[in-house]
Amino acid sequence: MSGYSFYQRASRAFRDYPSLTKLVVVFTASGGGLIAFSDAKSPHSACAYADAVAVDGDRKKKRVVILGTGWAGTTFLKNLKHPSYDVQVVSPRNYFAFTPLLPSVTTGTVEARSIVEPLRNIVKKKALNVQFREAECYKIDAVNKKVYCRSNQENNLGGVEEFTVDYDYLVIAMGARANTFNTPGVVENCHFLKEVEDAQRIRRTVIDCFERASLPNISEEERKRILHFVIVGGGPAGVEFAAELHDFATEDLAKLYPLIKDDVKITLLEAADHILNMFDKRITAFAEEKFQRDGIDLKTGSMVVKVTDKELSTKVMATGENKSIPYGMVVWATGIGTRPVVMDFMKQIGQGSRRVLATDEWLRVDGCDSIYALGDCATINQRRIMEDIMAIFNKADKNKTGTLTVADFQDVIGDICERYPQVEIYLKRKQLKNFVHLLKDYQGNAQKEIIDIELFKAALSEVDTQMKNLPATAQVAAQQGLYLANCFNRMEEAEKNPEGPLRFRATGRHRFHPFRYKHLGQFAPLGGEQTAAQLPGDWVSIGHSTQWLWYSVYASKQVSWRTRMLVVSDWIKRFVFGRDSSRI
Amino acid sequence: MSGYSFYQRASRAFRDYPSLTKLVVVFTASGGGLIAFSDAKSPHSACAYADAVAVDGDRKKKRVVILGTGWAGTTFLKNLKHPSYDVQVVSPRNYFAFTPLLPSVTTGTVEARSIVEPLRNIVKKKALNVQFREAECYKIDAVNKKVYCRSNQENNLGGVEEFTVDYDYLVIAMGARANTFNTPGVVENCHFLKEVEDAQRIRRTVIDCFERASLPNISEEERKRILHFVIVGGGPAGVEFAAELHDFATEDLAKLYPLIKDDVKITLLEAADHILNMFDKRITAFAEEKFQRDGIDLKTGSMVVKVTDKELSTKVMATGENKSIPYGMVVWATGIGTRPVVMDFMKQIGQGSRRVLATDEWLRVDGCDSIYALGDCATINQRRIMEDIMAIFNKADKNKTGTLTVADFQDVIGDICERYPQVEIYLKRKQLKNFVHLLKDYQGNAQKEIIDIELFKAALSEVDTQMKNLPATAQVAAQQGLYLANCFNRMEEAEKNPEGPLRFRATGRHRFHPFRYKHLGQFAPLGGEQTAAQLPGDWVSIGHSTQWLWYSVYASKQVSWRTRMLVVSDWIKRFVFGRDSSRI
Repeated sequence: MSGYSFYQRASRAFRDYPSLTKLVVVFTASGGGLIAFSDAKSPHSACAYADAVAVDGDRKKKRVVILGTGWAGTTFLKNLKHPSYDVQVVSPRNYFAFTPLLPSVTTGTVEARSIVEPLRNIVKKKALNVQFREAECYKIDAVNKKVYCRSNQENNLGGVEEFTVDYDYLVIAMGARANTFNTPGVVENCHFLKEVEDAQRIRRTVIDCFERASLPNISEEERKRILHFVIVGGGPAGVEFAAELHDFATEDLAKLYPLIKDDVKITLLEAADHILNMFDKRITAFAEEKFQRDGIDLKTGSMVVKVTDKELSTKVMATGENKSIPYGMVVWATGIGTRPVVMDFMKQIGQGSRRVLATDEWLRVDGCDSIYALGDCATINQRRIMEDIMAIFNKADKNKTGTLTVADFQDVIGDICERYPQVEIYLKRKQLKNFVHLLKDYQGNAQKEIIDIELFKAALSEVDTQMKNLPATAQVAAQQGLYLANCFNRMEEAEKNPEGPLRFRATGRHRFHPFRYKHLGQFAPLGGEQTAAQLPGDWVSIGHSTQWLWYSVYASKQVSWRTRMLVVSDWIKRFVFGRDSSRI
Repeated sequence: MSGYSFYQRASRAFRDYPSLTKLVVVFTASGGGLIAFSDAKSPHSACAYADAVAVDGDRKKKRVVILGTGWAGTTFLKNLKHPSYDVQVVSPRNYFAFTPLLPSVTTGTVEARSIVEPLRNIVKKKALNVQFREAECYKIDAVNKKVYCRSNQENNLGGVEEFTVDYDYLVIAMGARANTFNTPGVVENCHFLKEVEDAQRIRRTVIDCFERASLPNISEEERKRILHFVIVGGGPAGVEFAAELHDFATEDLAKLYPLIKDDVKITLLEAADHILNMFDKRITAFAEEKFQRDGIDLKTGSMVVKVTDKELSTKVMATGENKSIPYGMVVWATGIGTRPVVMDFMKQIGQGSRRVLATDEWLRVDGCDSIYALGDCATINQRRIMEDIMAIFNKADKNKTGTLTVADFQDVIGDICERYPQVEIYLKRKQLKNFVHLLKDYQGNAQKEIIDIELFKAALSEVDTQMKNLPATAQVAAQQGLYLANCFNRMEEAEKNPEGPLRFRATGRHRFHPFRYKHLGQFAPLGGEQTAAQLPGDWVSIGHSTQWLWYSVYASKQVSWRTRMLVVSDWIKRFVFGRDSSRI
């Protein structure tokens, strides 16, 4: 086909210059500045598996099973290259979705199909043997190294189909579900914003509300109820959705539904005192002011306690007063909860009392050597330095004198900082140059050359306060997927030549460097072509030029050239023709 | 917004040169010829309502209610311009869909959103007062001039909402539903291809079949069943869908599902002896041959008698033998049936014994002066010339002599030919020059100058055999919508100066010319970038160049510049990236 040969030519050009996909230069007219955004890779990716071992046909390949095709699972799969693995991917969705654009899908700024890439498109480009199964894993059997799966399509193809998959390594990347905090009525009456289908459903419901409000017999009170859109949760997802909805209503729907446009109301409920808590205060203040100007009713300090089919009840935190709010549509965007299958697995491995699946710094599930968990379904259970303080002291005290000199330390400082990342954060916070300064700083004027265990303990006693869980973002999940794939690619090599820090409680070194998250910044689109961004080094950027930065970063981060073209053309389409209001 | 001003500039350019949208010139490289496709307008459109009467606020406007937003209803609405009407449109779909591209939507060659235009986009451009109601009409009350409507959204906005709408003129353009011929199991187990949602469901189901067939525990027999796609009905829709599905399976899915691609089978069932019966024999033969080459199993002379969830039973017409065919998906594309609400209305007005709602040649429902019906839900009940033969004779016989001379005839020949279009078809078929020749031809050598009633009857006795119902196509519906809108626009004018043919059974003239369908040709896309076309004058064109003609005609026929851009960009996207296989 002539079409294909054109494609082949075009894609060859892109393949020959892969750097094109990684560097987007944006000239922001308003600021007059030049911002270069480059995809920061973890240091490991540089050491891509160079000398791929020739696999002979007889050697049994290790079976890797990946559960989930979100950011973590897909990035892991994309970067897994070592030929010694047989891979099976199990997910109820046969595609990867670029979830940061989900709020745009709710209003048709971007089409749903533009942000998804079929997993099999990714699989077919791989030299590895990869099988994809569209099914849901409903049970993990860590003892027999088996996962139980179920395909449950809603059609007449044959009902439930169950099967099991054996693994040598299991990678759990199933993501999370919306957290309702057990608020009654939420599951039955609210929309969530986790999946592509959720976004499509929200889009249809917005149009439903406008159409229903346009019917002749609707009373004014009922019309106002139907056109009241409530968003619960003032995090980035809730705020972005509120902004998108406001733009959709004022830029597009107001022209098409002129008789009812003045009855539209958007309310954002947040239990805390401010929205966008994880951002800099300047961003929060700007966002709150902009929403006020836009007429979005911001109710902070309000907690939802109950939702019925037409009303939700809130409790005002300050006064304890209960209020009832009639609504047409509620979107629940308050945070994430653990999936039942993961909860079940946690009970099985003795983590039943935890809120979320815990892994070590190498993303291995605590207590399960061959199971890894990453992305929103897991959290890294960082090791406290105080737990290992004796072991660290003994390791440094090579001569077993019971005391350490500064010189004794020099050998292990690097390993300590790598193994316990909280140390570095603590040093930075205290504005200390290095670990030795920390010890000296603690002693004040009475500086000694000899450090005993008590002094050592006392000096480090506050370090563990700096431990922080990573946020449940696409950025974290993708970095974890890349990190783990690189570990898998170098598994054999690292077995022979461990490259990680010293094992303080055992002999030798860890096989790999522990996972380290590199924060590249975060965006908060606020509507009206304005975006706030918090960039590394606590840089804050707000306004129209940041919106253009947002466009270029999101375009460059697309998983394929296909989706990149589609997303960009959707943006252009929206500029030229507005958003579509057909109810399909 | 800057986006909008750009749009305004661009769209102004298009508005200033509307002819741009109507003329597409395609240079077909293969044939070396130049084909110009121009939108043939009915002669009425030239007489667009020029001197719009200034309406004073006091005069009561006539209430026009349009049921349906398909080809007929939307074309009527778009062309209705006279300010003396208040319009209400009632339809369960708040958009117009370009249905000829539905088969393309089933496989993602074109996206569903690219072929729909929100009705309110069309409404907002109109100077008339138009209200749209997203609801279904479930009862027509012709006595009280009222329609009963119901909004039945599947959400928690408040359940069923009922209301009535009063009309002075009612335009029924509700289309048809799929015809199952009461075959058991069809409604429960088959897909139809009438609505946008049907096409989206088919797309998901095709992917479901491929994903399910890829599961590990599926037996070979079961896999072959799941991958067996059956299309019932060898008309243009069924054939086009079979071709699209074949292209999708071989061009895109085969690469993504390499392990199961050889188990895919497509079967086309047709009760008659050939597919594409309404087309020229050359097209039928070409299509059958191409399908055979493509490996599409063509089973003509097979009637489906029963469908269960995994099998369908057919009866081979020639032998009466029953066969059972296991399938994964069935698409039922056999023809159209009457909607229950129209059936109910037909009983009410004494048409209960008819299969489909009958109108006269002016699209008025028989026996209901202020109700019009057009598109797939109605058919024109042509008047037989033999029923009126006495009246015609008497009208021509001005002097009441009981005989006619050829000269007597000359005055009424034009009116006869206009009122009874079958006369012209008969003349053309018999290769006669005009009506006088018909009379002469009948008399053979014994030509007389005087014609009596018996001779007149005998000469015309075979004319009525040429009456033919119009096909249920978008083309007919659109021409009827345009025709009726022009009648409505000239209603007052034509009341004073009737422009239609003589009333043979009464005095005076008909207000309007009767509706006359002008066939512009028909396409049958056959897959692999090949299309067959039957153009006016029985021209037949088959092959790649016809595919390009198809592209240009379908692009030019789009209802708005927005959908035109979207459809064309979808085609380009498909050429470059192939079709998407994500299951959303």
